[in-house]
Amino acid sequence: MNWALRLITNRFRLSKSKSSHYDALLGFNPGKPDLYEIAFRHSSASIKGPLGRINNQRLEFLGDAILGAVVSDHIYRAMPSKNEGYLTQMRSKIVSRKSLNDLGHKLDLSRYIETNSKKPRPGEAIFGDALEALIGAIYIDKGYEYAQQFIMEKLIKNYIDLDELDQLTISYKSKLLEWSQKNKKEIRLDTQLSLNEGNSRKKPNFICSIFIDAIKVADGAGKSKKTAEEKASHIACTYLNLLNA
Amino acid sequence: MNWALRLITNRFRLSKSKSSHYDALLGFNPGKPDLYEIAFRHSSASIKGPLGRINNQRLEFLGDAILGAVVSDHIYRAMPSKNEGYLTQMRSKIVSRKSLNDLGHKLDLSRYIETNSKKPRPGEAIFGDALEALIGAIYIDKGYEYAQQFIMEKLIKNYIDLDELDQLTISYKSKLLEWSQKNKKEIRLDTQLSLNEGNSRKKPNFICSIFIDAIKVADGAGKSKKTAEEKASHIACTYLNLLNA
Repeated sequence: MNWALRLITNRFRLSKSKSSHYDALLGFNPGKPDLYEIAFRHSSASIKGPLGRINNQRLEFLGDAILGAVVSDHIYRAMPSKNEGYLTQMRSKIVSRKSLNDLGHKLDLSRYIETNSKKPRPGEAIFGDALEALIGAIYIDKGYEYAQQFIMEKLIKNYIDLDELDQLTISYKSKLLEWSQKNKKEIRLDTQLSLNEGNSRKKPNFICSIFIDAIKVADGAGKSKKTAEEKASHIACTYLNLLNA
Repeated sequence: MNWALRLITNRFRLSKSKSSHYDALLGFNPGKPDLYEIAFRHSSASIKGPLGRINNQRLEFLGDAILGAVVSDHIYRAMPSKNEGYLTQMRSKIVSRKSLNDLGHKLDLSRYIETNSKKPRPGEAIFGDALEALIGAIYIDKGYEYAQQFIMEKLIKNYIDLDELDQLTISYKSKLLEWSQKNKKEIRLDTQLSLNEGNSRKKPNFICSIFIDAIKVADGAGKSKKTAEEKASHIACTYLNLLNA
């Protein structure tokens, strides 16, 4: 075999093995294996490319939006009698940081993720981030329908039970109140129509302020009292680090 | 013509006129015209259905997510050298309440929207909401690619100029500082590593608190100092009603 032919054969073999590396995970043969390598490249292991640092963060941005669309479609169809407030809450639960990290674990993504071993070991979020980036890669490689099928078959059908999630309707407000009782903190939610009360041309209409031991820790705004309170409670929960627990 | 045939003919004529009613707006002939009627039904004009009140809010929930996916795809591809922070900021600008209301106006959606004239006239948000619901309806009626084509052809190509938006990089923080100078308020941003500093397994890492005249009005959390400050500033801007101005 002359060198040129050998080179071509090697490249082909290499690209074939790269590509089949992801087959079991994806359930299909990827068209652009390099894209999946990027999806699994944590920022600690960034490499320099002609347009800047290459890692999975741009694909994570994209995959997050694609996941949001597919999950919204799923719950919109699965729950025809539920209003948009309920659907929003349900979507938040499915795409929460904790839920995505868990799903990343279940898919055994650690087998694929590349990090820099000389830097501090990254936290759990690495799994959720890689999962989002993977979804972004599938979308770019194969289009929306493949991404949707992957999300439905590999994630939702296997691991997401809407009825179970429905039971688990601990709202952010409940979570916060629970914490305050446990930790003997005084919590006050002050919810009012927003300043521009008379002006219905502007959103939002309700503002909720949350005070812990008389110190304001969060504000939230929304079209309904409930939405405003949930938004403010979400911020307060984030502030108190209650969501990753 | 006997009554049964007349009934069928009338139904056919009615459904044909309903369907062609939307042709010019959509650029295609809708398969499920009833869905578009729902997309244009403001909550003030809700009707009672077997599964609850029928209005455009559920479709708005769905369309918001589809729009997010299509816009993310567009800027991901159009800006290959920009990082995820920049892309996120760009997406926020395109899908901001104000931007969607403007686009709804430009598409002349008021011709289609149904409200209850006995109730107070709804605000500008009605246009953005109807636009999102319309995108949700296209998605359910015809699928992702039609929704994507509608968004690209009717909205992005006609009205969204990424270079122009890039110039318009007034961040929420800048907006807030500008407001404070104009209104002679003292603003302080207090940004710190979050409580679980040593624990890299948890997100977020930075917390920003914003004080106006020494009163805390907002908190924000994020992976970077800049993200935390922008998130907190966004909440503060919402609180101060600076975003609809």
